[in-house]
Amino acid sequence: MHDLDQIRHQIESDLEARLQLASVHSSALVEAMKYSVCGTAKRVRAVLVCATTVGFGEDTYRALPPAAAIELIHAYSLVHDDLPDMDDSDTRRGKPSCHKHYGSTIAILAGDALQALAFSTILEAAQLTVQQRTDCAAVLANASGWRYMVGGQAMDMELMHGAIHDLDQLFTMHEGKTGALFRAALEMGAIVAGFSRDSEQFETMSKAGTKIGVAFQLTDDFLDATAEVEQLGKPAGADSLAGKKSAVAFLGTEETRNRAIQYLDEAVEILKSIDGDMTLVQRLAEECVHRQR
Amino acid sequence: MHDLDQIRHQIESDLEARLQLASVHSSALVEAMKYSVCGTAKRVRAVLVCATTVGFGEDTYRALPPAAAIELIHAYSLVHDDLPDMDDSDTRRGKPSCHKHYGSTIAILAGDALQALAFSTILEAAQLTVQQRTDCAAVLANASGWRYMVGGQAMDMELMHGAIHDLDQLFTMHEGKTGALFRAALEMGAIVAGFSRDSEQFETMSKAGTKIGVAFQLTDDFLDATAEVEQLGKPAGADSLAGKKSAVAFLGTEETRNRAIQYLDEAVEILKSIDGDMTLVQRLAEECVHRQR
Repeated sequence: MHDLDQIRHQIESDLEARLQLASVHSSALVEAMKYSVCGTAKRVRAVLVCATTVGFGEDTYRALPPAAAIELIHAYSLVHDDLPDMDDSDTRRGKPSCHKHYGSTIAILAGDALQALAFSTILEAAQLTVQQRTDCAAVLANASGWRYMVGGQAMDMELMHGAIHDLDQLFTMHEGKTGALFRAALEMGAIVAGFSRDSEQFETMSKAGTKIGVAFQLTDDFLDATAEVEQLGKPAGADSLAGKKSAVAFLGTEETRNRAIQYLDEAVEILKSIDGDMTLVQRLAEECVHRQR
Repeated sequence: MHDLDQIRHQIESDLEARLQLASVHSSALVEAMKYSVCGTAKRVRAVLVCATTVGFGEDTYRALPPAAAIELIHAYSLVHDDLPDMDDSDTRRGKPSCHKHYGSTIAILAGDALQALAFSTILEAAQLTVQQRTDCAAVLANASGWRYMVGGQAMDMELMHGAIHDLDQLFTMHEGKTGALFRAALEMGAIVAGFSRDSEQFETMSKAGTKIGVAFQLTDDFLDATAEVEQLGKPAGADSLAGKKSAVAFLGTEETRNRAIQYLDEAVEILKSIDGDMTLVQRLAEECVHRQR
């Protein structure tokens, strides 16, 4: 019986091994890459890749390269998002952010190298067919590029000093910034299990992934608002949340929570329509929405 | 008869078309991507990809996706290298550098998105087999990652305030920063022409590409030193060039020039051993070494 913690453990060991890079040019570079990937992360995206593959009856082992790759992409995006020219965050995952530790120069380069490493990881994966490598890498390149992940982050930055006008605009941003990688996770899991990009199974997992991504983001917004209440000792006003581009600013705390659960329910419905046992994906999606932080 | 200018023209049109991206999230992002790629570049790396493919008797058309991809990677590296946290350059290709025009935030994101687009371009290329897509993308990811291009740039940055101790160290840096993409260009050209990564032809083109890369870099160093002489009105001392990490600091102007020509000659010898007509590759390599700027 596969278990989420067991998968998480496999992913962590796999990532550790992949980040043992010989220092050819710059020891700071390879250290910063390792620093930004290894440690105390939840690995939600990677576990979703593996859980999907397992749900279709395939072994976790074959899903490890795309699982590692999606974490490398996620890690690079966090390193760049934390830069002074972006969100300017001093901490990440309970320790100083990459640029705080290694400086912005190395942080920019570490992010760049992590992106390239993500693609290498998939493209050199001996346990996948050539078609699966191409398909997984194409899915990841699309989800993480101008059209989605980077696009969403650019929109976020452009709107830093402006307001989000409506919920649609907010969802467009979050679909890019957060949602696309969740979708890619389930899509890659389906590819590793043997389904092509034009198969019904791929399409179905794609839809479920999008729903889980939205549910995850709404939960983030809800938890941020709750934390703000605790910190301020009073409910935060819509103004303070609009600056943070939170769904709570448009829907209020309770409705944001309700919508997260609604998207989770919709994802579960979709997962149940699959000819396979998506219990692990479902359990992970539930963990995402019912987490405390 | 194929001609270098004709190939250059095809590459330019192809890049223009690929950079017509709909603005989904941020118009600044897609504008900055286009701004950084299109314009007055020599496209040396892209032409090398196509010239290699043509030399093996295949059509330029099939080589356009990896040719575009290598220019996208090169462009992203220039955008990030120009950032204030890196080389802090205000101009690039005769116009304001990307961050000068769009700000550092968008410049970082445009670079990130160009890298992802490079991989998408190869991975979605309908004119290539799945095996060729995987091979080209793997070659490019390897050449542009921690092991070579980004590694070389990190070494350059780390040594910004220190000296290069010997010529070996300098060559290691330049092999990463500059040489690896030249090598990848000829390797991808061979892949598109139908050769696998463990074929003799691939290996031979790989060696020729490395030589051309070194010849190109030595010519850069030589031309910089010459320009310095003209600007200062006297030969620049070894000190000023050491800060610039130039081969001239170790070899002097004349010997640097001699070595560039020597590497070119070696590349030409290798190219002549190929069962194919590598005249265009040779001509382009000669142009690289005999250019005025």
